[in-house]
Amino acid sequence: MTPPRPGPVRLTDRRARAWLTRAAEPGQAATYALVRQVGPVEAVRLIRSRQAPPSVLSAVGSRCDEDRVDQDLSIARRFGIRLVTPEDDEWPAQMLHPMLLAIERGVPDLAPPLGLWVRGPLQVDEAVRKAVAVIGSRASTAYGEHVAAEIAFGLADRGWTVVSGGALGIDGAAHRAALAADGITVAVLAGGLDRPYPAAHGALFERIAGSGLLMSEWPPGCAPYRRRFLIRNRLIAALSAGTVVVEASARSGTASTARRCRELGNSLMAVPGPVTSAVSVGTHELLRGGEEGGARLVCSAGQVLEEVGRLGDDLAEPPRAPPVPRDGLDALARSVLDGVPVRHPATPERIARAAGVAVLDVLRVLPALELQDLVELTGEGWRLSAAERRASSGG
Amino acid sequence: MTPPRPGPVRLTDRRARAWLTRAAEPGQAATYALVRQVGPVEAVRLIRSRQAPPSVLSAVGSRCDEDRVDQDLSIARRFGIRLVTPEDDEWPAQMLHPMLLAIERGVPDLAPPLGLWVRGPLQVDEAVRKAVAVIGSRASTAYGEHVAAEIAFGLADRGWTVVSGGALGIDGAAHRAALAADGITVAVLAGGLDRPYPAAHGALFERIAGSGLLMSEWPPGCAPYRRRFLIRNRLIAALSAGTVVVEASARSGTASTARRCRELGNSLMAVPGPVTSAVSVGTHELLRGGEEGGARLVCSAGQVLEEVGRLGDDLAEPPRAPPVPRDGLDALARSVLDGVPVRHPATPERIARAAGVAVLDVLRVLPALELQDLVELTGEGWRLSAAERRASSGG
Repeated sequence: MTPPRPGPVRLTDRRARAWLTRAAEPGQAATYALVRQVGPVEAVRLIRSRQAPPSVLSAVGSRCDEDRVDQDLSIARRFGIRLVTPEDDEWPAQMLHPMLLAIERGVPDLAPPLGLWVRGPLQVDEAVRKAVAVIGSRASTAYGEHVAAEIAFGLADRGWTVVSGGALGIDGAAHRAALAADGITVAVLAGGLDRPYPAAHGALFERIAGSGLLMSEWPPGCAPYRRRFLIRNRLIAALSAGTVVVEASARSGTASTARRCRELGNSLMAVPGPVTSAVSVGTHELLRGGEEGGARLVCSAGQVLEEVGRLGDDLAEPPRAPPVPRDGLDALARSVLDGVPVRHPATPERIARAAGVAVLDVLRVLPALELQDLVELTGEGWRLSAAERRASSGG
Repeated sequence: MTPPRPGPVRLTDRRARAWLTRAAEPGQAATYALVRQVGPVEAVRLIRSRQAPPSVLSAVGSRCDEDRVDQDLSIARRFGIRLVTPEDDEWPAQMLHPMLLAIERGVPDLAPPLGLWVRGPLQVDEAVRKAVAVIGSRASTAYGEHVAAEIAFGLADRGWTVVSGGALGIDGAAHRAALAADGITVAVLAGGLDRPYPAAHGALFERIAGSGLLMSEWPPGCAPYRRRFLIRNRLIAALSAGTVVVEASARSGTASTARRCRELGNSLMAVPGPVTSAVSVGTHELLRGGEEGGARLVCSAGQVLEEVGRLGDDLAEPPRAPPVPRDGLDALARSVLDGVPVRHPATPERIARAAGVAVLDVLRVLPALELQDLVELTGEGWRLSAAERRASSGG
């Protein structure tokens, strides 16, 4: 038998999408629309033959003539990175659907990814089925990192995936806390997964890739340009049921993620901090509403889940001071109690005058107050009980 | 000439109101309604002869037979305290009007005062014409006191009166800061003005009485019972265009003032703090909304005045990061700039590939970027300018 003669390499959907992820910066509605209309293989043919619409050609620019698909796929294989596409079962189609609705409404730069470069043992759709983004400033404070960690730990501990951007500061604290809770965490990066950025997070990314997912819209080798962070931010918002901003300065990428979050109809939350802290200025602006739209104030993982959780058992208990017997009293009993001296005992008549109620009422109420250990009867009259004396000095 | 024979002491409106402020705890709608209907003199006669409605008689109780008017007025005179009544020009009728509307709607315990015992050189109506309440926990932190002082100073400095409750902690910090700004501050107390409470604030109260106002609904000698603080709180809210809560624990008197504030239709504001602080739990609950109704988040005196101010020059500037040249760029220029390497110069062709735009576009945009000192041309090609290199390592 003679082997079949090799023909020209046939472009599969997967290879076409690999090409597209390098040629077209993600998020652009024009390119996405073309691929959706004619499929990835035909889209690539139209682009490379300069027959695509001018808006697509201008966006691709000089990358039109490049072909690094073989190289990209080979580097990816070497780093354990796979390309996940809409043709794959694990594609998170449901999570990305609001992006589709957003570009149909004409919101710019919100097109879904053309493909996702992914590293890690989980299926993408499974990993983000119940996910919350915890993001914030790189110039974080110890306070911010502590709160981000508390919230991320609480979320992961209750089976929610923590999505973040892998940056120094708040992002890193969130990823680490999710790992510490033996939970799932997903880092969505703005460059090739073979180039850990920031380099200081190399070891962290290895741990994330071991139990969660590293994810990027850019193929191996791509540098994390500043603008790519903003494009990437829309994906962090899209893959999460809600986004929690922990610290952010006055004008920052975090605010853009937050806006994305609103545009995608997802829940936007922010953690307050000291008004004297520069990295809480951005979160307070989100909480005040304003240009970026209002965020909901959250203090804990429980309050985050109250906002995004669909399950009853995720609801947060409102914080409560310890109950004191006083609370069960009616208005008359409270008045009488107010008239009872703290230390030097008084007669019912004097208590009645002090409280502004009738003596008969005082005589009727005092025994009930005694039963509740709120007052005590001494040889010289009534006064507050020892427990109430202590309570009166606080409260 | 023989002097006229002294008849029975005629009860004036003023003396009648002095009697009422001791006999009836303030806030009760029934007593207020009776006084409003028949006038103070006749109201006193009806109460003392047991002909008043049962709800009024039961509220007055055994104080019915007391008469300490002469004594109260004489002590008041000795301490420089005057009784201000609705019959006086300085009565703050306009500020108290929402209380009247509230009790007409059936909101309990919101009746206007029957009289005000006042000490200080200002007319009451003038002092509270432009007033904001700054209140909070007695168990305050250094952070809370700092912020309360910053806000109170800012308000006083712009001609707004700072109203508070004279308590330790936040209240004291607010009063002191208003005094430090040479502004007007009003302390609304829950007991007789001759009995400074807390005693530790005796000197502070003297300073307030010197340039602002001390005020109470209770005559001299009355003790500041716990329930009186809650009744007093409605007056703090009523006398202010808005109420700022700086720190409050989970369930506290502050929350009741806040609720009063809503019931009176005044603006309710809260200052956030670290979510790790017990005395910010109450303010965060106010900001989250919930039972007590939502408060507006404020960080500064400017933001407070934005909320309550009617004057254009009181509006707050939104916080802004310092402007950077990048912000003026269009999308194409930003893309090109993103493609320019930080350190090692690149050719326009390489920049075009990195940025995903056409080479001609790059050649067109680079000189403009150079003019704005964003990029520089070296022997080997283009790279970011020194200024942009510094900016890139931050941001």
